[in-house]
Amino acid sequence: MDLIAALQRVVGKDGVKSKDKELKAYQNDKSYISGKSPEAVVLPSNAKQVSEILKLCNSNGIGVVARGGGSSLTGSSVPYPKSIVLDLSRMNRILETRIEDGYLVAEPCATIDEINKHLENHEYFYPPDPASSGFATLGGTISTNAGGLRAIMYGSTKEWVLGLEVVLPSGEIINTGSRTLKRSLGYDLTGLVVGSEGTLGVVTKAIIKIIPRPESIGRILAYYKRFEDAARAVEEIKRKGITPLIAEFMDRTSMELMAEAKRLPFPERANCMLLIDIATTKDSLDRFIGISETALRKHDPILVNTAKSRVDMERLHAARKLLFMATEEKAKSTGRSVIVADAIVPPSEMPSALAEVQKAMKKVGLEAVLFGHIGDGNIHVNILANLKTQRAKAEGFLEALGEIALDHNGSVSGEHGIGLEKKGLLIKELKKRDSIEVLRLMKEIKKSFDPKGILNKGKIFD
Amino acid sequence: MDLIAALQRVVGKDGVKSKDKELKAYQNDKSYISGKSPEAVVLPSNAKQVSEILKLCNSNGIGVVARGGGSSLTGSSVPYPKSIVLDLSRMNRILETRIEDGYLVAEPCATIDEINKHLENHEYFYPPDPASSGFATLGGTISTNAGGLRAIMYGSTKEWVLGLEVVLPSGEIINTGSRTLKRSLGYDLTGLVVGSEGTLGVVTKAIIKIIPRPESIGRILAYYKRFEDAARAVEEIKRKGITPLIAEFMDRTSMELMAEAKRLPFPERANCMLLIDIATTKDSLDRFIGISETALRKHDPILVNTAKSRVDMERLHAARKLLFMATEEKAKSTGRSVIVADAIVPPSEMPSALAEVQKAMKKVGLEAVLFGHIGDGNIHVNILANLKTQRAKAEGFLEALGEIALDHNGSVSGEHGIGLEKKGLLIKELKKRDSIEVLRLMKEIKKSFDPKGILNKGKIFD
Repeated sequence: MDLIAALQRVVGKDGVKSKDKELKAYQNDKSYISGKSPEAVVLPSNAKQVSEILKLCNSNGIGVVARGGGSSLTGSSVPYPKSIVLDLSRMNRILETRIEDGYLVAEPCATIDEINKHLENHEYFYPPDPASSGFATLGGTISTNAGGLRAIMYGSTKEWVLGLEVVLPSGEIINTGSRTLKRSLGYDLTGLVVGSEGTLGVVTKAIIKIIPRPESIGRILAYYKRFEDAARAVEEIKRKGITPLIAEFMDRTSMELMAEAKRLPFPERANCMLLIDIATTKDSLDRFIGISETALRKHDPILVNTAKSRVDMERLHAARKLLFMATEEKAKSTGRSVIVADAIVPPSEMPSALAEVQKAMKKVGLEAVLFGHIGDGNIHVNILANLKTQRAKAEGFLEALGEIALDHNGSVSGEHGIGLEKKGLLIKELKKRDSIEVLRLMKEIKKSFDPKGILNKGKIFD
Repeated sequence: MDLIAALQRVVGKDGVKSKDKELKAYQNDKSYISGKSPEAVVLPSNAKQVSEILKLCNSNGIGVVARGGGSSLTGSSVPYPKSIVLDLSRMNRILETRIEDGYLVAEPCATIDEINKHLENHEYFYPPDPASSGFATLGGTISTNAGGLRAIMYGSTKEWVLGLEVVLPSGEIINTGSRTLKRSLGYDLTGLVVGSEGTLGVVTKAIIKIIPRPESIGRILAYYKRFEDAARAVEEIKRKGITPLIAEFMDRTSMELMAEAKRLPFPERANCMLLIDIATTKDSLDRFIGISETALRKHDPILVNTAKSRVDMERLHAARKLLFMATEEKAKSTGRSVIVADAIVPPSEMPSALAEVQKAMKKVGLEAVLFGHIGDGNIHVNILANLKTQRAKAEGFLEALGEIALDHNGSVSGEHGIGLEKKGLLIKELKKRDSIEVLRLMKEIKKSFDPKGILNKGKIFD
């Protein structure tokens, strides 16, 4: 079969890329793991075309890697031998906005920022908010059950998806869930597809829950010498009955990167910075900020500072969100790559887990940035490594971080998924819980959806 | 094999019931559909015993129906030929309370009220709150993905379960999810088991998310002549950016039942009553109540009244929660049964859907009570019917209600599940969405978990 010609028959000539140079551009996502050049890249415009493409690939044993913004951090969107890439970027429309019913319908390649921009006029928003929201797509965040900055208050993506249109490898198009705010209709296939990293079906439409924006948000910056103090200060806020909207921590290297990129100065002796958002009603903002400041002051800070203006607030938020890109730039300028590590522990384990993570960072000896969502126990480390000479070292650190999380009653992935990177760690985690049977069940489920194994083979498990 | 003796070897003599009279007590749940007398009732005390029992049944082809509070409204906990009942009432402990980490671990037969009572001292709570919370167990609410009064603000059970200990038919004990507030670990088996009505495994432990209680709650009663006005008034509150904690509606018959049971008088001309809870900070309560009252007043109410005291508030809440029992008593005293119907539509469809439901109620001509969670579009009807003479009529109404929901972009079950009652309606809903393939996937998933089909056979699908 002439694959290219067959694909062109489905999507037209301009919907298929097949030149070497074009294909090469799809070899990588934002992880450190390179894939193979795909056989072709195909750009469908609707579910019908996706269905035709999957049918074609399913009957010819050709692998299919669905791709949104390409911002996976675990290699979950890199191609493998005998696979094509399904670039969904043409399917990026917001189709319906139902404020009165609390939902929005969009295609997979609408970005999170686009969706929230669109909802601004209505004073509504979609809570999941990965730091990559500028280019992370709805479909991508669904595929990894993305968390993000506001997960401490609103949970992960899976709590916000009401229903999906999914194309199965057979070409069959199914609609899971519904347009209602809840339902009890047997097995929750919507929830099963969320987090399945493109291995069960291709999401071509999503019905997501949206809610009114909080009336008021205040933003507090605090600097500490010790990470433990910062972690205890956040615990203290929560003990006062206040769940922050955002509670981020950043180490000194992060501060330096943000200082460079956004002219955000920081106190000399600071080793840990907290960025805390408090969302509440306009009547309560001052009181809540006051309680939070007091809690932050109780744990030996160097400085506690509440943003005074909207401009100030936005600068801080922007600084946090560009941390990855700033790290990436620094890495590139020195011929290195960035590996973003992700692990999660119960919040009370943060002080001890962070101490061990810092030890492990020292031990590996690579330049690295420690930060994360301190409110829900989500730890990230950006490692700068030369993949030719330091890959094994970096991978050793990833393994160590996963083990620290497991030692502290945590999980090896908080929000980035498994992809290619963490297949071993996933097995470790399941074994630790005497639950390796879970892997068998996952594989059986995979078979029910994708009997020939064409979708994103080798991701999550072998 | 002597089944009784074999079961006794696992749980001791006092852990097995086998007398005809004892067995008969397990034939029914709170639905109108009777089951068969089980072969035996066995009361395990721990996961290990559950595992032994399932192994035994799996190798001998004996069906197993797990049972908590027996409050299923769709027949999902009634036994069938050649099955035993696994009565989990001995497994009712709260095992861990981790306020600082935002979770609690409990056995399946802790009731929802027990859990919330336990959390009171900590000023925390578990949001899912079915009207049956006094006897509904955690396991039961997990099995049906229960919603309840606060679902408008907090969603359903599936959004609150972090992890599960599940015994599979093979006897294998697995732990799904984790003790962290989020995770991305491949297919979400936790979410798959939630809502699976005991057909995939037996839940022996659950890790659930808990949060601080709202600072302040105000309760407003409003009475309307027309249902449409009541529905529009609730829409109006939401349009003002306020999501009520609770937004219940009740028809005149409900008011009469509550008046009798709790001496709750109501205005002569009232046909629809609203019970609205507003949860916010203490600084904002008066303002939010004011906004809500204004919204309620805009739509031609007969009376709008905010509860003045805690005693008042509790009386109202108690009245709403005993609606089912009051209906049941009335039915029993006249030799009838109560059939509780459940359907859901997008909230903006409520005015037109409710008009059609009332027409259908008139047409069937049985005494019936119309009420539900108006804020999230969840409609309930309690039908009083003599099952010997009026069963077909009542079933006709259930079918009609499901079809009204489907005509209004809704679902045939909002929170009660499918059980035996709605297998036909589930198929109708899937067909309406061109998604009958979903049923095949459910059956395949069932096979992966329960290859011999011993668990709660015939529930959800045939």
